[in-house]
Amino acid sequence: MINLHDLDGGEGSSSGAVDLAAVVDARRRLANDVHRTPLLTSRQLGAIAGGCVLLKCENLQRTGSFKARGALNAVRSLSAAERARGVTTYSSGNHGQALAWAAALEGVRAVIFMPTTAPRTKVDAARGYGAEVRFAGTTSPERKAAAEHAVATEGFVMVPPFDDPRIVAGQGTCLLEALDEAPAPDVVLVPVGGGGLCAGSALVAAASSPATRVLGIEPRDANAMTRALEAGQVVTIPPPRTIADGLMPLAVGALPFALARRHVAGTVLVDDDEIRAAVAFLATRAKLVVEPSGAVGVAALMSGRVRLDGKTAIVVLSGGNVAPAFLAEVLASGTP
Amino acid sequence: MINLHDLDGGEGSSSGAVDLAAVVDARRRLANDVHRTPLLTSRQLGAIAGGCVLLKCENLQRTGSFKARGALNAVRSLSAAERARGVTTYSSGNHGQALAWAAALEGVRAVIFMPTTAPRTKVDAARGYGAEVRFAGTTSPERKAAAEHAVATEGFVMVPPFDDPRIVAGQGTCLLEALDEAPAPDVVLVPVGGGGLCAGSALVAAASSPATRVLGIEPRDANAMTRALEAGQVVTIPPPRTIADGLMPLAVGALPFALARRHVAGTVLVDDDEIRAAVAFLATRAKLVVEPSGAVGVAALMSGRVRLDGKTAIVVLSGGNVAPAFLAEVLASGTP
Repeated sequence: MINLHDLDGGEGSSSGAVDLAAVVDARRRLANDVHRTPLLTSRQLGAIAGGCVLLKCENLQRTGSFKARGALNAVRSLSAAERARGVTTYSSGNHGQALAWAAALEGVRAVIFMPTTAPRTKVDAARGYGAEVRFAGTTSPERKAAAEHAVATEGFVMVPPFDDPRIVAGQGTCLLEALDEAPAPDVVLVPVGGGGLCAGSALVAAASSPATRVLGIEPRDANAMTRALEAGQVVTIPPPRTIADGLMPLAVGALPFALARRHVAGTVLVDDDEIRAAVAFLATRAKLVVEPSGAVGVAALMSGRVRLDGKTAIVVLSGGNVAPAFLAEVLASGTP
Repeated sequence: MINLHDLDGGEGSSSGAVDLAAVVDARRRLANDVHRTPLLTSRQLGAIAGGCVLLKCENLQRTGSFKARGALNAVRSLSAAERARGVTTYSSGNHGQALAWAAALEGVRAVIFMPTTAPRTKVDAARGYGAEVRFAGTTSPERKAAAEHAVATEGFVMVPPFDDPRIVAGQGTCLLEALDEAPAPDVVLVPVGGGGLCAGSALVAAASSPATRVLGIEPRDANAMTRALEAGQVVTIPPPRTIADGLMPLAVGALPFALARRHVAGTVLVDDDEIRAAVAFLATRAKLVVEPSGAVGVAALMSGRVRLDGKTAIVVLSGGNVAPAFLAEVLASGTP
């Protein structure tokens, strides 16, 4: 079931904007303010998948997801003049929370654009970090337009969620850190939304452990990377339906795509039922609260879509920000 | 609200049976087969408690609790003749699971006595590790009598849940490991049931970091250690009612009591509502699944019963084996 992507790698791309040195710089920039998250062995998952499974616990990261890495790297990469202007973004999810947190840590003003339908908890969380929340329509394009208008009229610096070299470099620190403990895994499974984590992981693996195969995992309908790799260019998919609400961009970023095209071994698609089973397994057996978007790698193993055949996998659990009511329902219905 | 115990320490006790050297031996004996569990900073809990909070995540330990440490140390301390006889115990909870696991790891026969009312999941888990399960009545004394009868008639070696030097030494490895990363915490909060973890932690702290105060945390009704320290001897309490089902022994062990009397700074009592709030907090904020018995230290901090006043605390999250339905109910009802 693995769609191996033909690695041509010969053509030019914008991936030159991020390399291992940029990730190493990001790591230095983040030191002490993001957690070095644990890499935990799961023998039960290893038995299921037929190999050794190491879980990189970014659900335990500050702000509850790996997004803290890219956001803080971006904010700490600003010039003094840029810092004075403040930052903005149009994500109401983990990136929005992470940017609010990173800006507060650096004493930089942050304005986060959210849909008028944003859950109260997300609004409160961003405000809790000290960010200003502004509401703009109900769709992502409306939000993005409002944020871009604010950039143009009020001078904010846009910190986009994934299509940005500072973001990709920051997200790359997650795998760089994991490779300290497990230097040459056979495979790395990473969730793919806009592609920032996937691209950062892929470039780190290519530079540090070339025999490691990086697989991007997507929900079946939210397959923007799979489609892009097939088409050889970024494509826009129809609005997907999936419980993995962090993996729903309609298109991957141009920079993540360029890096993935060169360095990702393939993509794997998982169903919502498989994601749900993975969330339940992680909570009841691994004792870890992981959001649906963060559990897709485990879903790929549990469903048998990826078999390890005695090999070692690092599986990135990318975040833990799940609505308590959703987790309650999964636990009440889904487990023995 | 802290009941500071008067430290006399002058009289003889059976604590000579366990010392730091025994814990260091246990650590060597366990190496590679128990997880070195993460020690995670919780800034949110630190803010609540007014200090620095480090969570020792034994919920992520093999078999889902710290009990793996003592059980494996006990099994690996057996002579060849004892190994050939097989082991038994009368705990249907975390110790029973841990002994089943440890015995399987060592190729030793294990017979676990459980009440006829034991939940199917616990029976299946023990059998899953390869142990034989026998049913004996519905009360702890009935179970204990049946196990002792099996020892007398079939020659098994009894591995009791807490009142045993090999068990106390094994449980002590948890804090020993945490002190590698945080060598001189001001205070350590440990759950107290029969007292094995508390005693092991207290002797390790006394020997390695004498300025560290170890506090035992008990549910309000399951206060066997508090009562024993007040009385100056082990006392039997009425059957308690609490959601912390791992902390319900009617009396602490003689050995744990002797060590606690010398080395524990005091005990703190928490209510079930506070424990429930701690379980919800840990799942929704810290992204960790922790059973009620394992969450009492966090309950002590969140309730304000222990204030840190700028100091550093290690809080042992002793286990994660919570019924999914219970966790679902806590999540559905207890969180914002």
